[in-house]
Amino acid sequence: MRPAVLVTPMAQKIPKIENAEYIGIDAGCLRILEAGLDLAYGVGDFDSIDSKELEYLNKHSHLEIHPVKKDETDSELALAFAAQLGFSPLFLVGALGGRIDHSLANIRLLMYRYDDLILWEEDQRVFVLLEGKHVLSREFKHVSFLAVKDSVLSLEGFLYPLTHAVLRVQDIYTTSNTIQQEQGIVTVEKGKLLCIMTNRK
Amino acid sequence: MRPAVLVTPMAQKIPKIENAEYIGIDAGCLRILEAGLDLAYGVGDFDSIDSKELEYLNKHSHLEIHPVKKDETDSELALAFAAQLGFSPLFLVGALGGRIDHSLANIRLLMYRYDDLILWEEDQRVFVLLEGKHVLSREFKHVSFLAVKDSVLSLEGFLYPLTHAVLRVQDIYTTSNTIQQEQGIVTVEKGKLLCIMTNRK
Repeated sequence: MRPAVLVTPMAQKIPKIENAEYIGIDAGCLRILEAGLDLAYGVGDFDSIDSKELEYLNKHSHLEIHPVKKDETDSELALAFAAQLGFSPLFLVGALGGRIDHSLANIRLLMYRYDDLILWEEDQRVFVLLEGKHVLSREFKHVSFLAVKDSVLSLEGFLYPLTHAVLRVQDIYTTSNTIQQEQGIVTVEKGKLLCIMTNRK
Repeated sequence: MRPAVLVTPMAQKIPKIENAEYIGIDAGCLRILEAGLDLAYGVGDFDSIDSKELEYLNKHSHLEIHPVKKDETDSELALAFAAQLGFSPLFLVGALGGRIDHSLANIRLLMYRYDDLILWEEDQRVFVLLEGKHVLSREFKHVSFLAVKDSVLSLEGFLYPLTHAVLRVQDIYTTSNTIQQEQGIVTVEKGKLLCIMTNRK
């Protein structure tokens, strides 16, 4: 399947993902064009864009325009749109680090709706790990895990290894681990985990 | 009971809370002193502070020094320490907006361990609402709710009012509401909510 890169107005650096289509969320459309990338689609209420910019966007891409008063967040609508078109995985850029309510809503979309979603910042990634064996590269300094539902996991190649450890949704003892060997191996024996990788201090 | 203001190294502006004791978390101790406030206690591994600073802190307050390698985060240890001394409510300043794993861990401490915890930034607040009626002032532009457990709530005085609405943990339709009248009244008929107030764009 073909990946999609969804870009919010908050996005800092937009990654170049091979073969991906770029979808702008509201003023995120402008971020995509500023980065010299092709804007395939735009989704949102576009209440933060002036009419001239909107006309320009409408000419150069396909826009899905939603009312300002609505039950869904713009990111939620954009993810549903991309999933419906069959894109996968879904990279959401600029999903963290702004308003904490938006960050938390995006993380709930990841936890409960889109297993193939990756919240992507230049120096941070958040994604889910389903049951099975996962190999993580030593790209980021800190690796943390939080349970989406009560889980059992093993960690190999980490500073703090674990063997068949129970991780409940309220546990946070798996915060701030580090991959020490070439790779970190995470085995989710039961449940579902949030994996958070970061290079920030 | 007496409030405590716990200050992380990430803290920007530290609020002046009447009658509160100030507890520094690691280099957060220095933030408290820089702000001209009294540092009552310091908690952490202090791995980011040099030996001269540590000696100074030790002379001017009571320090709880923990090993660098440990199962708990520094914030977690500081909250347990403050709760054990009987402080309430607990204001945690600089708990959001840095590393997303730390923000999420702090939010889980709020969701599952400390009902009297308030995550406090200059322009954002996160706290929990237990069953009952709560009056919120129109201090912040955006007010969002997320369910800690499946809940039923009513909202009065808001742009998007609700009457006996079901909010499940995976729902995000209650993101980005606004208090339109003098006050917003939130009735949690069942369950437990995260309330997020923000002035950011």
